[in-house]
Amino acid sequence: MSACRDLKTSLHRLKAIMAAKKQVIIDTDCGIDDAQAIMMALAAPNIEIVGVTCVFGNAAIEHVCQNVLRVLAVCEREGIPVFRGSGVPLVGARNPVSDHFGTDGLGDVLKDKDPQWEEKIQSEHAVNALIRLVTANRKQVSLVALGPLTNLALAVRLDPSFPQKLKDLYIMGGNMEGKGNVTLCAEFNFAMDPESAYIVLEEFLCPTYLATWEYSCRNALTWEFFEQLIQQDAPAAAFMKVITSKCRAYCRETTSNKRYVYFGSGYVSYDAYAMAACIDGSVVTESITCPVRVELQGSMCRGMMALDQTNELKKSHSVFVLTKCDVEKFSQLLLQSLRQPKK
Amino acid sequence: MSACRDLKTSLHRLKAIMAAKKQVIIDTDCGIDDAQAIMMALAAPNIEIVGVTCVFGNAAIEHVCQNVLRVLAVCEREGIPVFRGSGVPLVGARNPVSDHFGTDGLGDVLKDKDPQWEEKIQSEHAVNALIRLVTANRKQVSLVALGPLTNLALAVRLDPSFPQKLKDLYIMGGNMEGKGNVTLCAEFNFAMDPESAYIVLEEFLCPTYLATWEYSCRNALTWEFFEQLIQQDAPAAAFMKVITSKCRAYCRETTSNKRYVYFGSGYVSYDAYAMAACIDGSVVTESITCPVRVELQGSMCRGMMALDQTNELKKSHSVFVLTKCDVEKFSQLLLQSLRQPKK
Amino acid sequence: MSACRDLKTSLHRLKAIMAAKKQVIIDTDCGIDDAQAIMMALAAPNIEIVGVTCVFGNAAIEHVCQNVLRVLAVCEREGIPVFRGSGVPLVGARNPVSDHFGTDGLGDVLKDKDPQWEEKIQSEHAVNALIRLVTANRKQVSLVALGPLTNLALAVRLDPSFPQKLKDLYIMGGNMEGKGNVTLCAEFNFAMDPESAYIVLEEFLCPTYLATWEYSCRNALTWEFFEQLIQQDAPAAAFMKVITSKCRAYCRETTSNKRYVYFGSGYVSYDAYAMAACIDGSVVTESITCPVRVELQGSMCRGMMALDQTNELKKSHSVFVLTKCDVEKFSQLLLQSLRQPKK
Amino acid sequence: MSACRDLKTSLHRLKAIMAAKKQVIIDTDCGIDDAQAIMMALAAPNIEIVGVTCVFGNAAIEHVCQNVLRVLAVCEREGIPVFRGSGVPLVGARNPVSDHFGTDGLGDVLKDKDPQWEEKIQSEHAVNALIRLVTANRKQVSLVALGPLTNLALAVRLDPSFPQKLKDLYIMGGNMEGKGNVTLCAEFNFAMDPESAYIVLEEFLCPTYLATWEYSCRNALTWEFFEQLIQQDAPAAAFMKVITSKCRAYCRETTSNKRYVYFGSGYVSYDAYAMAACIDGSVVTESITCPVRVELQGSMCRGMMALDQTNELKKSHSVFVLTKCDVEKFSQLLLQSLRQPKK
Repeated sequence: MSACRDLKTSLHRLKAIMAAKKQVIIDTDCGIDDAQAIMMALAAPNIEIVGVTCVFGNAAIEHVCQNVLRVLAVCEREGIPVFRGSGVPLVGARNPVSDHFGTDGLGDVLKDKDPQWEEKIQSEHAVNALIRLVTANRKQVSLVALGPLTNLALAVRLDPSFPQKLKDLYIMGGNMEGKGNVTLCAEFNFAMDPESAYIVLEEFLCPTYLATWEYSCRNALTWEFFEQLIQQDAPAAAFMKVITSKCRAYCRETTSNKRYVYFGSGYVSYDAYAMAACIDGSVVTESITCPVRVELQGSMCRGMMALDQTNELKKSHSVFVLTKCDVEKFSQLLLQSLRQPKK
Repeated sequence: MSACRDLKTSLHRLKAIMAAKKQVIIDTDCGIDDAQAIMMALAAPNIEIVGVTCVFGNAAIEHVCQNVLRVLAVCEREGIPVFRGSGVPLVGARNPVSDHFGTDGLGDVLKDKDPQWEEKIQSEHAVNALIRLVTANRKQVSLVALGPLTNLALAVRLDPSFPQKLKDLYIMGGNMEGKGNVTLCAEFNFAMDPESAYIVLEEFLCPTYLATWEYSCRNALTWEFFEQLIQQDAPAAAFMKVITSKCRAYCRETTSNKRYVYFGSGYVSYDAYAMAACIDGSVVTESITCPVRVELQGSMCRGMMALDQTNELKKSHSVFVLTKCDVEKFSQLLLQSLRQPKK
Repeated sequence: MSACRDLKTSLHRLKAIMAAKKQVIIDTDCGIDDAQAIMMALAAPNIEIVGVTCVFGNAAIEHVCQNVLRVLAVCEREGIPVFRGSGVPLVGARNPVSDHFGTDGLGDVLKDKDPQWEEKIQSEHAVNALIRLVTANRKQVSLVALGPLTNLALAVRLDPSFPQKLKDLYIMGGNMEGKGNVTLCAEFNFAMDPESAYIVLEEFLCPTYLATWEYSCRNALTWEFFEQLIQQDAPAAAFMKVITSKCRAYCRETTSNKRYVYFGSGYVSYDAYAMAACIDGSVVTESITCPVRVELQGSMCRGMMALDQTNELKKSHSVFVLTKCDVEKFSQLLLQSLRQPKK
Repeated sequence: MSACRDLKTSLHRLKAIMAAKKQVIIDTDCGIDDAQAIMMALAAPNIEIVGVTCVFGNAAIEHVCQNVLRVLAVCEREGIPVFRGSGVPLVGARNPVSDHFGTDGLGDVLKDKDPQWEEKIQSEHAVNALIRLVTANRKQVSLVALGPLTNLALAVRLDPSFPQKLKDLYIMGGNMEGKGNVTLCAEFNFAMDPESAYIVLEEFLCPTYLATWEYSCRNALTWEFFEQLIQQDAPAAAFMKVITSKCRAYCRETTSNKRYVYFGSGYVSYDAYAMAACIDGSVVTESITCPVRVELQGSMCRGMMALDQTNELKKSHSVFVLTKCDVEKFSQLLLQSLRQPKK
């Protein structure tokens, strides 16, 4: 009877913990910084990842799917369902994929490809999975979008009520000051699919938090911290050390790098800033609340995000454009994320 | 035993007929001319309609769904499944719906709305239904698209192999000579969602037949024929007579009507031209085979289709742009379509 | 006294003829067909050419100036002042010049370049000359524009009343059916400088006659006629025979030629159609009177002209878009033009 | 003889001063801040204004011309020639004029209009005057452009060598951070005529200094300083006090004012920042040297200027984008400017 009571108590506690946990879906074009952000979510005790949806971007969709599976394997969390999403932007493009993190998106250093990877991807399309999971847990799910916003745009087309069923939305993407990293004025994730970024920022009326390119760059960490981060004694840190082995030199190089020209040197794990905001709101210490819009035309400005602080556009919906970060708290989340799995 | 043999023979024959039937999915923004085209398919002995998918356009998506149900009811074919699709264009728009055929798309004359209509629409989304039905019958299904091409564009995003699983594609839309009916240079269905039209004409590499605005206008019928058509003694004819009662005057009016200015007077049932081409290929007596592309920019030309007869665009895929029609055969298909259901 | 009376009579007649003569300024990007058009004007007894203004287009502006001088020399009319105008389009472009008629615009066959040609060009800029000549002869001057419309656009910017001081304006350029010869949907002269074409068609409210690409192609002459034309025994014919010697083969080739694909074979001297309309209005037997506008945006439609026959644009000004030509009269003007100078 | 020597000495000094003086042409859409900038130039001992060219912008061209005449009259410098330039943007627009400083551009408070003003304007067009004056003083003339850049764009079209004949070019216009004051992302002078701004920044290869909107806003003065400025005992100060009488309240209002939202409160005399840079280079204490380009397309970004600090555009020409100002020196130039004319 005592054993039974103990069990009941345990179950009760478990439920309480589960209830307290934030349900999160991660939509990702899994490159190196996405891997870091996913690990941060996996390590966070208050986060329950209900699914990972994949999208093209840092690599072709096939690579992205495999990268996500690999990150989950490293952290021994293969139970989380992974869904394949769009392999091209909404309106289409010839060569939509970047090789910033190598052809495979994870630094082109991993060799032991899993021949059965396709079987480990759910058969349901990412867009249908997004709709199903969010509909089943209305106002419970936080969506963290780390790549081009194609899957989100498709979700609102297939289910117009999708945005209002979300608890909230965290996006890594866009910019605040007209400075771009992929074209002269546009940030990578938005430039990869400007129409989808436009749709999401016009039609997703749930609470929305934007970690822009400038936000992450202005809150960069030191390269000393990065060394400390990957030298930790855990599989996740070892994995990160391996996948960054080739590109570290490139990332630290100052001459050919826009980040350095505009914002000075430092280690910037873009997607981790959006994820951190979702995991612990107090990591964000300042933000601008205003409507935003994505420019769809132009040779330099296509994909650029503009802030409307003077209500020029007569939009009723405002988003939170993050501006300042508690770098100490953020650093702790990063350190914790690479200590997985607990031995 | 003889009876059994007869039955077997009958079954055999039935199978042969079924096998010979063309499987057709109709994607429609059901206004008056869509209703006419659907009835033409319903009346055709060689056509099996495996589903009707709805899209905004001539009316709001809710009206379109009800209009399709009503047409099927008039023809006593309620068994055909109807699916609800996109209510807005791919990239979004404020007021995407036309009132050319009245607010409800069927002339604003019908009063006995069905309060249970939503239950009669399948719960599956039109885009998922398109993918499922076409995947289950690879290379067997002809898709006839009578409205904005939003559902088709979404289908190829969710299933990149969707186009190659189609038998063929018939589209009412686009133009050949830079003359528009909704803007200065763009045809209604393409102007309603230029991005989707662009996607379909770039990515649907199945055999594609285009009944453009000019094609239908240049092969117009007389108003005398129209009177003969709707005066036939059958529920379908009576229904057509009712729904055209208000707008006939408008359609025949010459001053405010682009069709008359450009092509002269006459009765033009746009969507029926695309459907007729699907039902009986010999209705089309001439066509241009060349690549085409939709212009996405411009104040006058957004949504305009251009023919590339000199291989400027270096596209490998050509479509059939219909130019001449066997008006006699076409008239017979129309007459037959309004004699439903057989008493 | 009798001699004196004769002289008086002669002078009187001369004055009458002069009074009756149409004053014409030719704005040209002098290629082979411009040369033909200029010769047509030189040969016309009712035309007084008060000046020729040059613009880039068929060749670089330096070649254009030399070509005009050469045409005037062949016809022994060196007295007509020639002005140098814009060498680039209004908003600028990298490679604005065509080599359709060879690098020099006159078939790359002429060798005896005049080292003093620059001295024979007036020092006044073409735009200032246009304004001065037209201001001095208000409502007397017909302007015949055979190239990109840059000089005309600049003239209205420097003198907003320039258009209303013109008698009328004849333009070779634009299109009627969305078919282009340089891009998929735009005609050469308009595509070379879409902004200038836009400005002229929006702001030149004088009577305006447009000889479009389709107009000239649809009223093509035979290659037999062309042979007859250049075999005439006169310096002008000999000159035309020389400059067309290289490109005749190319022009008659059917496979790589848009004109043939769209309109069938034949000899088309584009600019001559606009000039003929100015010399003798009865050469034009049919035209559409309506507002027009040039599209400024788009990948295929930039530079395309659209006809607004249904008053979509709410413009008050209409132009004459020529559609049919008295080919016999036109042929006679051509034949006459190459019989110069009279021996 | 002593007198003669004195005279010689005086003449010598005068020559030396004249030689040392910077020759300046001011191109202006004379509103209140242009008036301030012109007065600054008039008061500067090292500046010789060789002409003022007018352009639409803050007011219609007719008002601009009268405003310039009035400023010169207040400062008793009516001898400086004033030229009328373009009244519309290069490519044309329906309503090109702002009423930020009232309909007349000078606060709508002045009543004694001069009925003879048109006679006081030179008959030569501003664009021809620019070309003539600069050609006559090659590499001697600094051009200070305070309005839309239409006259400059027209000048390079009429004389392609115009830019290289300039000593240098100072522009008030454009922006650095994607923030606009007239549209969401574009600054007034550039938004008024994006094509001309584009042309000038692509084709004027002389040393070019840009006082952007953000530069002037970030170096704002206090409203206390403004009171001190206009309370000075001189006709110029009194004039400035009168013309700012109505709009001071508006300018200081915080709620409807973009400047305050983006940069905080303060008095900003935009055009004076460009003029100050010309008068005394040491007023500018920091600038970015890089290529720039103007975006011509887009609903929000048309007219926006982008800085290319990472050589994305492969342009060879860099401009100086001013970033920091010696506010004390600048204040002294302003104070001095309103002490005119010396009694």
